[in-house]
Amino acid sequence: MKSFRKELSFRIPSRRGFVNITPQVEEALRESGIREGLCLVNPMHITASVFINDDEGGLHRDYEKWLEHIAPHEPTSQYEHNRTGEDNADAHIKRQVMGREVVAAVSEGRLDFGTWEQIFYGEFDGRRKKRVLIKIIGE
Amino acid sequence: MKSFRKELSFRIPSRRGFVNITPQVEEALRESGIREGLCLVNPMHITASVFINDDEGGLHRDYEKWLEHIAPHEPTSQYEHNRTGEDNADAHIKRQVMGREVVAAVSEGRLDFGTWEQIFYGEFDGRRKKRVLIKIIGE
Amino acid sequence: MKSFRKELSFRIPSRRGFVNITPQVEEALRESGIREGLCLVNPMHITASVFINDDEGGLHRDYEKWLEHIAPHEPTSQYEHNRTGEDNADAHIKRQVMGREVVAAVSEGRLDFGTWEQIFYGEFDGRRKKRVLIKIIGE
Repeated sequence: MKSFRKELSFRIPSRRGFVNITPQVEEALRESGIREGLCLVNPMHITASVFINDDEGGLHRDYEKWLEHIAPHEPTSQYEHNRTGEDNADAHIKRQVMGREVVAAVSEGRLDFGTWEQIFYGEFDGRRKKRVLIKIIGE
Repeated sequence: MKSFRKELSFRIPSRRGFVNITPQVEEALRESGIREGLCLVNPMHITASVFINDDEGGLHRDYEKWLEHIAPHEPTSQYEHNRTGEDNADAHIKRQVMGREVVAAVSEGRLDFGTWEQIFYGEFDGRRKKRVLIKIIGE
Repeated sequence: MKSFRKELSFRIPSRRGFVNITPQVEEALRESGIREGLCLVNPMHITASVFINDDEGGLHRDYEKWLEHIAPHEPTSQYEHNRTGEDNADAHIKRQVMGREVVAAVSEGRLDFGTWEQIFYGEFDGRRKKRVLIKIIGE
């Protein structure tokens, strides 16, 4: 069995944002030389998400609006977590709704994806450096 | 390390529906000959979900009603994604809430499940052919 | 390839609660002797969740309050599932929102985590014995 590890890093300039990281994951897969296995991609932070969906800007704005509707940032005083001096309790909730991680199949040296599947980094508490972990195992 | 890949396909006749795919995943596991490892099951589409829960019709209707309450299909104009000509923005949201994929343990040649765990395909934009990927690695 | 399996068990005295199980997962990883691979952690029940987030009591109370807001326990008659004699339909919904399982990378014999990542067992229908499965594969 082979294993491969790589970190990506991001600094999203706004509080929230989505970035298509499929090319970076494909590059890591090529570097790994693994042809059959599983590929885990996760943020190393707890106010961010890695998820698979459509690379369509309108949909991303729908996600943003909908997440803000079900778990609003303001008023920050509505969340007990924010009494610690943070203002990001909503980001911890949004990340749970969107999910932490993605596990993708690797077949014949490629991400084994349907036509529209793309991997995104979802930031809910940005404006600072964050890391994403790619771990691939297989052979 | 061994790896095994199989696709299932579905055409749900209505917009939304849940199908118990545990027997098909168990059959794939037998075909694979893998006795210890991990089994990934995911839709190859971005308006569908694979999840583990109870095979109880009342609960599935509760999921349907609750998902429609928090991310309603109508009015379709409330979603920017639908300006692309689609009417399925709500399905992209519902799939995020229910999750994309399942990773199950394989122990002694079987899905290592508790008593009530069953694997479901969750469709949120049906009436066309969709695929599910099963990828098993181990030995 | 090596594989390792271990069960944890819990009896949360109240209906809902969160328990940090990171030390138990780290101990299982040491017992496994696996240094590079993937570690799956999931409840063997369908009204509980395993998730990664912050070990901060205020945040856990925010999760509890927010989950109860979007999928309330009462009135229990609002859920068709509860006509089976159960009163836990809301727990099945809460578990989907928080997610079933966690897949963590194992690198150099350790959980490959960011600074604040901790693994929690999330109970939504407690007061009885529940099990969590840890399955580690790698070498």
